[in-house]
Amino acid sequence: MKIGLIGAGRIGQLHAELLTYHIPGAEIKTAAEIYIDEVKEWAEQLNILNLTTDYSDILNDSEIEAVLICSSTDTHAQLIIEAAKAGKHIFCEKPIDFNIGKIKQALNSVKEAGVKLQIGFNRRFDHNFRKVRELVESGKVGDVHIVKITSRDPAPPPIEYLKVSGGIFLDMTIHDFDMARYLSISEVEEVYTQGAVLIDPAIGELGDVDTAIITLKFKNGAMGVIDNSRQAVYGYDQRVEVFGSKGYADVKNDFPNSAKLNTAEGVISDKPHYFFLERYKMSYVEELKAFVDAVAKDKEPPVTGNDGLQPVLIGLAALKSLKEKKPVKIEEVIK
Amino acid sequence: MKIGLIGAGRIGQLHAELLTYHIPGAEIKTAAEIYIDEVKEWAEQLNILNLTTDYSDILNDSEIEAVLICSSTDTHAQLIIEAAKAGKHIFCEKPIDFNIGKIKQALNSVKEAGVKLQIGFNRRFDHNFRKVRELVESGKVGDVHIVKITSRDPAPPPIEYLKVSGGIFLDMTIHDFDMARYLSISEVEEVYTQGAVLIDPAIGELGDVDTAIITLKFKNGAMGVIDNSRQAVYGYDQRVEVFGSKGYADVKNDFPNSAKLNTAEGVISDKPHYFFLERYKMSYVEELKAFVDAVAKDKEPPVTGNDGLQPVLIGLAALKSLKEKKPVKIEEVIK
Amino acid sequence: MKIGLIGAGRIGQLHAELLTYHIPGAEIKTAAEIYIDEVKEWAEQLNILNLTTDYSDILNDSEIEAVLICSSTDTHAQLIIEAAKAGKHIFCEKPIDFNIGKIKQALNSVKEAGVKLQIGFNRRFDHNFRKVRELVESGKVGDVHIVKITSRDPAPPPIEYLKVSGGIFLDMTIHDFDMARYLSISEVEEVYTQGAVLIDPAIGELGDVDTAIITLKFKNGAMGVIDNSRQAVYGYDQRVEVFGSKGYADVKNDFPNSAKLNTAEGVISDKPHYFFLERYKMSYVEELKAFVDAVAKDKEPPVTGNDGLQPVLIGLAALKSLKEKKPVKIEEVIK
Amino acid sequence: MKIGLIGAGRIGQLHAELLTYHIPGAEIKTAAEIYIDEVKEWAEQLNILNLTTDYSDILNDSEIEAVLICSSTDTHAQLIIEAAKAGKHIFCEKPIDFNIGKIKQALNSVKEAGVKLQIGFNRRFDHNFRKVRELVESGKVGDVHIVKITSRDPAPPPIEYLKVSGGIFLDMTIHDFDMARYLSISEVEEVYTQGAVLIDPAIGELGDVDTAIITLKFKNGAMGVIDNSRQAVYGYDQRVEVFGSKGYADVKNDFPNSAKLNTAEGVISDKPHYFFLERYKMSYVEELKAFVDAVAKDKEPPVTGNDGLQPVLIGLAALKSLKEKKPVKIEEVIK
Repeated sequence: MKIGLIGAGRIGQLHAELLTYHIPGAEIKTAAEIYIDEVKEWAEQLNILNLTTDYSDILNDSEIEAVLICSSTDTHAQLIIEAAKAGKHIFCEKPIDFNIGKIKQALNSVKEAGVKLQIGFNRRFDHNFRKVRELVESGKVGDVHIVKITSRDPAPPPIEYLKVSGGIFLDMTIHDFDMARYLSISEVEEVYTQGAVLIDPAIGELGDVDTAIITLKFKNGAMGVIDNSRQAVYGYDQRVEVFGSKGYADVKNDFPNSAKLNTAEGVISDKPHYFFLERYKMSYVEELKAFVDAVAKDKEPPVTGNDGLQPVLIGLAALKSLKEKKPVKIEEVIK
Repeated sequence: MKIGLIGAGRIGQLHAELLTYHIPGAEIKTAAEIYIDEVKEWAEQLNILNLTTDYSDILNDSEIEAVLICSSTDTHAQLIIEAAKAGKHIFCEKPIDFNIGKIKQALNSVKEAGVKLQIGFNRRFDHNFRKVRELVESGKVGDVHIVKITSRDPAPPPIEYLKVSGGIFLDMTIHDFDMARYLSISEVEEVYTQGAVLIDPAIGELGDVDTAIITLKFKNGAMGVIDNSRQAVYGYDQRVEVFGSKGYADVKNDFPNSAKLNTAEGVISDKPHYFFLERYKMSYVEELKAFVDAVAKDKEPPVTGNDGLQPVLIGLAALKSLKEKKPVKIEEVIK
Repeated sequence: MKIGLIGAGRIGQLHAELLTYHIPGAEIKTAAEIYIDEVKEWAEQLNILNLTTDYSDILNDSEIEAVLICSSTDTHAQLIIEAAKAGKHIFCEKPIDFNIGKIKQALNSVKEAGVKLQIGFNRRFDHNFRKVRELVESGKVGDVHIVKITSRDPAPPPIEYLKVSGGIFLDMTIHDFDMARYLSISEVEEVYTQGAVLIDPAIGELGDVDTAIITLKFKNGAMGVIDNSRQAVYGYDQRVEVFGSKGYADVKNDFPNSAKLNTAEGVISDKPHYFFLERYKMSYVEELKAFVDAVAKDKEPPVTGNDGLQPVLIGLAALKSLKEKKPVKIEEVIK
Repeated sequence: MKIGLIGAGRIGQLHAELLTYHIPGAEIKTAAEIYIDEVKEWAEQLNILNLTTDYSDILNDSEIEAVLICSSTDTHAQLIIEAAKAGKHIFCEKPIDFNIGKIKQALNSVKEAGVKLQIGFNRRFDHNFRKVRELVESGKVGDVHIVKITSRDPAPPPIEYLKVSGGIFLDMTIHDFDMARYLSISEVEEVYTQGAVLIDPAIGELGDVDTAIITLKFKNGAMGVIDNSRQAVYGYDQRVEVFGSKGYADVKNDFPNSAKLNTAEGVISDKPHYFFLERYKMSYVEELKAFVDAVAKDKEPPVTGNDGLQPVLIGLAALKSLKEKKPVKIEEVIK
């Protein structure tokens, strides 16, 4: 399967490398990147034959079946529309957009064109979270009562990045909103947000927060809570717990090794993996496999367009809740 | 030190036994209990020489230095007032009362009499939570950003008990409100409550909930979240986590043994201790030791009258938040 | 049940305290101790009414049903013989003796008198090891193939103690030999010992070793290995593992708390309990309960005279193996 | 760097794939394999341009700098000699041979030719074991007193394989002998072996055992113990522990995920990884990286020819010990 890569920045390069090395039968035929000079060497090493600044070269190439949209967020919706019209199957990085209208337009184009669209919520393919979902699905946890998600980054991104990030809820928590839906197997109905600037006042000056606790009400009656921090000095903290009528399932962080040193001072072990590349590498491989598989076998992709829309709605509700200091229903932000 | 026991129900008997067997130099001289016939055999076995239905026998006994108030909640405030007037040092089970005015009256009596008052928040003396507090106090966690408390009972109490319990927040979560103050080393400023009836509709008919997530804002800027359930089928679930600028400290549940069985089906170990007696037994000993020590050495007890008042305020705010579906400041319930 | 205590040194006092505080219906009526002045205060605090230097006062007291023999090892066999003749049931600290002939004589006296004898292998009553034994007994581990025991003390005892200890195998490993029989549910057939002086040359000068690996062959075909050290600076190290045809069961050490601190330097937790009092306290209670229960209900005690003999045989074989640098069969030391 | 692959069976294919996908700057130019038809498709997929039945095509190709010897054990020594004479750097799978004379001849050829030789003891590059070694090397464990290695396969290999395997000690335990040297940072002086046939009588009929405990004496005074089983039904069991004067370091198994399910029946988690591919995949990548790095930078490879010889000596001593039922010194098998 020939695939086109649109946007060869950090995440685009990651996808291209994993696809090349880990997914037999799929290859990047063409990569489109505005800053073409910066990626020439990289593309060569990866045996990507065609490099272009114009993504139309991909959309017009009838040999290319699918595209990976890894460009900046503000281009996602438009690229989905054009790719759909060109009849390409689409893997698009999250979020689709911050604007509900634009997201819906994009999803409509996909529907009309009858192509497949998968959104890049890679954590659904993580070995730990997938196992928890399986335990929920199998009924071993019983009816879901409480979903708990801890999600903390090792260090805040540069302020320049934060300025265009859409804020913590649409940039960082959006993954957790997806995870909450994935683990509860339900939709979110209402959100209440508590946020604070405890790490860097510069983040506050942007009108953003760096620490937050978000509580959720699900349509199936369950409740959820997410806690976020932009700075966990011990590394990437990614844990979940689902509590239900038959018990609870949880996962701890992944560690570089399991060595424990027992000394007169105490028991010491390594801290968790530092960040998402170490922790989630294999989940990116798995999501690409699932996408290639869905295209090859003409199946519904495991993360749909609606799965791209919902977390944005929850994020906008979270933002509104923070500003208005009250719980906000999802339907309030849809109108 | 001669001590009088007022109320020899389940918790009163527990205190008396632990005091007798584990605290050298202290003894129960007299026990007052309305249902005197039901405790005669027990008192004999424990070598408690005097048994009475009239607690005045304790308050009028000049040899008795201190009392343990273990009667029903509605009698606590009045007994504190009388015991203080009689010049007895007081250990009183939580909560002091559900009425703020009555609590303040009781605390005033204590102040005027110059006696010591310790409230029975035993979990502060638990080996696990105390260690987390030490790590916070020592600065090893850094500035506190997030406090997380999981507190789930193995099974709901009888409906008859629930009817007079004051509701989940004043009966069960009150321990967690104390723990939140203990671990954050700060006061709570605002509360938001999400609650649901997911276990037993009969609980809902009482106007109570059986599952809840409560978020907290502390005066020092930190945030907190407590999750409660009246029914964790795997046993008593009592975990805490404190996250701060230098890392996080957490504890897991205690287990009856550490055996793990590795088989072709997976790795299996025992579930946590079933309930509070198994889990917290030694914490009750430690709190009594601290009380006896405070009296003997004329020191401030480690859990003061104000420590008895604050969790009730938070509980009332939590209840108001649930009913009004909005965050509630503590000062709103004080007025 | 009235009980007599013979020998009120460290272990005798421990037994007396646990019996008094934890075992309803049993009490120490009389304690015999040569250094009577040193224990007077202790006996008074514990409400032991009679204190004597002459253990005959116990043996001649028809009200006393059972004795706890906690005197020095060289007196055990003789005291068992006399107590049996006096018709007292006997709880005797390990080891019975280092001399096989004397042990057999003692066991014969017990048999003739028809009294009960329980040997103080307390670790069989430990919550962790008992659970592993249950898993073996229930067949969940399958046929036993390998038994592994790690047993390390926090620090060597004083040289004066070591001089009369009988050497590491009869003093320290003897507990592990009992554990090996307990967990394998089989007898030991052959022993091979590797030993070294790695901690203190003074131990070597006594002809003893401070570090050892002992391998065992069991009659049921299984194999075992014990590793010992006189100095584990992180605390008391007491772990076992049983591997069989259906999997393996193991236990880890017990810790004072389960707190973990995650920081930029790593994850740090407390070291294991320091020594046997912290780790095994409740196992001593359980063994006394079992003894009192066996006497009261006229049942076979759970640790018999033969259970006292076998570990001494294995210990003597281990010593012979170390000296002759070859595997030694148990039958070689019986002759 | 152009590399030749000699032997494209299971392990040869694994090395070729890992080299291709994970080691930038190195590639398999030619693969030699007798059963050439069976590997044609595989070689094509991997873009290996030249496939041959004659390994001379590799040795005679001046563009090829290094070879990976992955053929059957009985060809290793001869291929090392020929490759060395051809001036190729050599990565050779373990064991070099079972015959000490042939090993020494091979090592001499390497020395004379001045080429590099690395032996495929991949476990040294495992994230867990490498960390333990680092802790030992850094002095954090102190002087090494006891090394413990648990090494159990999930299921016995086919009897046909076992017939030519050289027996459990040279086929399976050889990895553990290498690990013992790696972790103790010392040579083995003496071996005592206990073995039994507890899994499959057919293994016994070959004169082999399927379960073993091997104790080791090291030249630095430390002791070691290895326990082996051909059948751990819960999966691949690979744990080590190093105990020393300052404490101990250990590692547990790796698991497919960290999910724990807490229910009324207990706490259940997944069993360890099934076998070496799941567990050791990344260690194979790391060993190849180290080899390519040693060749590229003209450094001593991290696993030398002597590291290939020593475990064979220990294995032969272990076999002799089993047969003669006594401890055997390494020097006894050298003669």
